Amino acid sequence: MSDTFGELDHPPRLLMGPGPSNVHPRVLRAMSASVLGQFDPEFTAYMNQTMALYRRVFATANRWTFLIDGTSRAAIEAALVSVLAPGEGVVILNAGRFGLLLSEIAGRCEAELTLVEAPWGEVIAPEAVAAAVARAKPRLIACVHGDTSTTMAQPIEGLGAIARAHGALLYVDATATLGGMPIPTDAWGADIVTAGLQKCMGGPPGSAPITLSDRAAEHIAARRHVERGLAGAEAVGAGRRIASNYFDLAMLMDYWSDKRLNHHTEAASMLYAAREAARVVLEEGLEVRFARHALAGAAMTAGVEAMGLGVYGDPAHRMSNITGVIAPQGVDYDRVRTRMRTDFEIEIGAAFGPLAGKLWRIGAMGINARKHAVLTTLAALEAVLRGEGFGFTSGSGVDAAMAIYEQAAR
Amino acid sequence: MSDTFGELDHPPRLLMGPGPSNVHPRVLRAMSASVLGQFDPEFTAYMNQTMALYRRVFATANRWTFLIDGTSRAAIEAALVSVLAPGEGVVILNAGRFGLLLSEIAGRCEAELTLVEAPWGEVIAPEAVAAAVARAKPRLIACVHGDTSTTMAQPIEGLGAIARAHGALLYVDATATLGGMPIPTDAWGADIVTAGLQKCMGGPPGSAPITLSDRAAEHIAARRHVERGLAGAEAVGAGRRIASNYFDLAMLMDYWSDKRLNHHTEAASMLYAAREAARVVLEEGLEVRFARHALAGAAMTAGVEAMGLGVYGDPAHRMSNITGVIAPQGVDYDRVRTRMRTDFEIEIGAAFGPLAGKLWRIGAMGINARKHAVLTTLAALEAVLRGEGFGFTSGSGVDAAMAIYEQAAR
Repeated sequence: MSDTFGELDHPPRLLMGPGPSNVHPRVLRAMSASVLGQFDPEFTAYMNQTMALYRRVFATANRWTFLIDGTSRAAIEAALVSVLAPGEGVVILNAGRFGLLLSEIAGRCEAELTLVEAPWGEVIAPEAVAAAVARAKPRLIACVHGDTSTTMAQPIEGLGAIARAHGALLYVDATATLGGMPIPTDAWGADIVTAGLQKCMGGPPGSAPITLSDRAAEHIAARRHVERGLAGAEAVGAGRRIASNYFDLAMLMDYWSDKRLNHHTEAASMLYAAREAARVVLEEGLEVRFARHALAGAAMTAGVEAMGLGVYGDPAHRMSNITGVIAPQGVDYDRVRTRMRTDFEIEIGAAFGPLAGKLWRIGAMGINARKHAVLTTLAALEAVLRGEGFGFTSGSGVDAAMAIYEQAAR
Repeated sequence: MSDTFGELDHPPRLLMGPGPSNVHPRVLRAMSASVLGQFDPEFTAYMNQTMALYRRVFATANRWTFLIDGTSRAAIEAALVSVLAPGEGVVILNAGRFGLLLSEIAGRCEAELTLVEAPWGEVIAPEAVAAAVARAKPRLIACVHGDTSTTMAQPIEGLGAIARAHGALLYVDATATLGGMPIPTDAWGADIVTAGLQKCMGGPPGSAPITLSDRAAEHIAARRHVERGLAGAEAVGAGRRIASNYFDLAMLMDYWSDKRLNHHTEAASMLYAAREAARVVLEEGLEVRFARHALAGAAMTAGVEAMGLGVYGDPAHRMSNITGVIAPQGVDYDRVRTRMRTDFEIEIGAAFGPLAGKLWRIGAMGINARKHAVLTTLAALEAVLRGEGFGFTSGSGVDAAMAIYEQAAR
């Protein structure tokens, strides 16, 4: 035996970036349960329970609510490639990196793209979407709910009605907000919503919940082809075949239905994680959880503002679970992040694209949307910024955040 | 709080089917380590270590050896969609369900398919492949090493030379054999090999190791497009864009390189599992491990044959880690599997397609390629078949397997 690098041995880092966030201990423990075969009755019962749990997490009655075996981006691609045949239209709301990602993936589906755009830090008015949809008559409207690149939460209200008025489907990427901000799938009239576990759901990256309305399911089922080797010598089906096998939601519905038609081998440990994460979320209660995230975000915002730091983006539309902190002149942007990690074992996020070098993205998600994590992060940021020579009143950040918590407790 | 179904609470089932197999306890424990951010230096060090470990597992010097965040099928699709542009040729060796799967996925890539086929239970001669390649002049030759649907192991020797002689790349799906049978990637001249963790690697499904030769990497890199939002307003790149974003190996190479160009959020817990599984495999030693699997397979085969049961497929080309047991006339095929599970907590596999209802597939993989698992399975099978009225000498199966182990110990 030559070097096999030793056991995992890393510090218990506090993850206060844009995600992943720290995983709830119950979820970590669930992953160590023994694996079962994918057609085992105990396992298919867990699959059905997972579907039921995520219906509640997504606030939907959708039958087709299950998991994609991949990271959150896998579910985005599954949604887009299963709906969009080449040449079909999609109207994409783009005001950040993850709006761009939707256009990147839809482009690979060879869809006809119409972008409705806003500058980073702003959101898009429903009227602009309605106008674009009326012109383009797309198959799909696609948008990101919380775009962590900008820390903005796009209002989804009204988009479902626009989609229905024009015979389109509505897709919402809720990766960064599910479990942290309200995701009223049915009330929004959203036809497909996808997410991940690693932000507000308190799980690890690697499993991606998805929910599909009956309208979406019917559209996708019309493109259904049974896999060769299951149905016989030839693939059977109708419509243009979905370009991906792994992300073919028609086949995945067959797999997650009582038919249990063989597809991939379900990632059992990640399913255990997803199931346990949903149990933790629902046992806390969605409304309580959203309020906890909002309070943590308010405390973080008050803290950094009390230190004299600017907070990025339209205040009316900020995500509650991540705060865009404008890096002040004269401090070393990268060194601040490094010292947060090396001196305090705290991770905060850098920024992308036009915001690179200008914004620190400080998240408070899942188990970290709590007082101690917010206060500890602010105390550390104070110490690091003092070391950089940034002028502010020591203790002001922590005290302002503490005041928000005390006020909420009254 | 309404019903959240309670904690995971299933029996410790012995998984003796075609996979998933039981996970090594070290791998289960590794998954409960705390998650790190994907660009954290500790985490990127784990990524680099994982690359180094899998180079040894794949017996290759390939720089590009990493993980796909999905089940084994995800890596198959990543390989095919990243190599094959629409209209390009692929010669596929098809002698089972997983050969058909290659054709199903390649079909969705809109590749030109040439199938070289053999009846289930047989393997394909290199001469037949050479003839097809000479005619079709494909971009890629694609084959399955161990096809669990038939329990046959396709010889790969010679295929690398055929590929090189005709300017093609060679892809091998080693999902069911990596860690259990020799996978000499470089000696085979294989350009891409993919696998999963849930068979002989002793891990859970959900992470898929892949290795790419420099030739394969160069071909794929020539199709490289940087994602919008990373490079600026417009995608840049050359060649026909890879149809998938999630499975774009060109982008994944950038992500796993020192560039660390943002792609998905690496599934940290599954990476911990993959890393630990490789450590366990390499600490045991590949040759020792292959011999252990071969011995378990020989014992299982001797056991079922001593009971008077037939074993499926060409004896010269059977996989060592799974045994196709021909169900005898007069016994209830499904009830045997059910009673194995309900009376003994042992899972054995059913069969697909032309073998459905005719063959039980009994695996001995990973931690289950051991004496106690083989003997316990045979003892249980004896009891269940006695209950079905199948005539054989009680104890003959267990004793024959025991004799193989005793002989090997001498």
